Amino acid sequence: MKKVAVVLSGCGVFDGAEIHESVLTLLALDRRDADITLLAPDIPQMHVVNHSTGQPAEEKRNVLVEAARVARGEIRDLAEADINEFDAVVFPGGFGVAKNLCDFAVNGPECSVNPQVERFILAAIDARKALGFICIAPALMACVAKNRNLHPRLTIGTDADTAAAIEKMGGVHLPAQVRDVVVDEDLRIASTPAYMLGRRISEVADGIDRLVEKLLQLA
Amino acid sequence: MKKVAVVLSGCGVFDGAEIHESVLTLLALDRRDADITLLAPDIPQMHVVNHSTGQPAEEKRNVLVEAARVARGEIRDLAEADINEFDAVVFPGGFGVAKNLCDFAVNGPECSVNPQVERFILAAIDARKALGFICIAPALMACVAKNRNLHPRLTIGTDADTAAAIEKMGGVHLPAQVRDVVVDEDLRIASTPAYMLGRRISEVADGIDRLVEKLLQLA
Repeated sequence: MKKVAVVLSGCGVFDGAEIHESVLTLLALDRRDADITLLAPDIPQMHVVNHSTGQPAEEKRNVLVEAARVARGEIRDLAEADINEFDAVVFPGGFGVAKNLCDFAVNGPECSVNPQVERFILAAIDARKALGFICIAPALMACVAKNRNLHPRLTIGTDADTAAAIEKMGGVHLPAQVRDVVVDEDLRIASTPAYMLGRRISEVADGIDRLVEKLLQLA
Repeated sequence: MKKVAVVLSGCGVFDGAEIHESVLTLLALDRRDADITLLAPDIPQMHVVNHSTGQPAEEKRNVLVEAARVARGEIRDLAEADINEFDAVVFPGGFGVAKNLCDFAVNGPECSVNPQVERFILAAIDARKALGFICIAPALMACVAKNRNLHPRLTIGTDADTAAAIEKMGGVHLPAQVRDVVVDEDLRIASTPAYMLGRRISEVADGIDRLVEKLLQLA
């Protein structure tokens, strides 16, 4: 039974973890009998977006507390997790990855990464763990790789600006369709475009299912 | 292509719609090419629960605004929906069904139902539309049936107290396991226990998939 950490960035596509991608990741892992642990950093969200209007709201929310909604309460603080507990780590997408786990949404290739998140990803790479990045999450991996001698092969689908930003940070971007998975066998990293390209939940589910299958092979 | 309304009660198992059940319902519908519309009432939540501690929080949230997170922004006010737009209606579970759409969580068999929700369900029954109820949502159907000459056959799994409450309201409760669907062919109602019994997302997914298959047959 492979032990897999799923790292969430909140609860909701515009300010947190993309909910469909998060749930579909859990489903694909559970179908393969993975031992799943949900993790999130105990930090404030960058902001709160009213998802019915798309406008920022005058509220404060916490990434771990909101991510606990997706986790049905069963979630741990990322700061207390040790990479040696796990065989693999997955990051579902959503703007929370680019707003809360790093600031790619604001600063693009000049982004910086939350120190807990950066430490966890670097520890995973050092320990040769398998890593999965969904939707916009490959940009987080590229942020971590920046200024290090890491050049991960990643996909965010076909969006030219995001692909260029990934390349500027030293990543290698490969275009892909919604059901495709790009694999970096050396770094043991898999990525898939999900809602960067997907228009239907069923095609996003197919891409994530393939990513999880590949992730468990890499682990 | 069947037109199906999915009615959400917020975003999070303890104070809103159960997120996994909601997403798995969308997945099962989309895999069968249903034309999906997300709906929620534009009303305050009964309360807000911090899902990482399980404790009530000092916040106010709105059911429609939070449900929009599950819907990726694509959601309509239930008050503006006409049952004639749809072939079928599904209610995923979560405490929001029993706290926001009706007050079953507080008042048990003495519950009352939000007037918009009650109107919509009664219109569906009158128009012979197919109805699906997941997890605790069959209790909502029983609340609506109460004091009317309706005796829907429903399941919430095996929980004795909830089953007794459903029977007290005039419903007929049939015990079921997590992958089972109970069907009332006369009233065109399907129900499945989901997380009332499920311990794994994959078994909940199987039950919901069967419910959706049956729902579309009834529609």
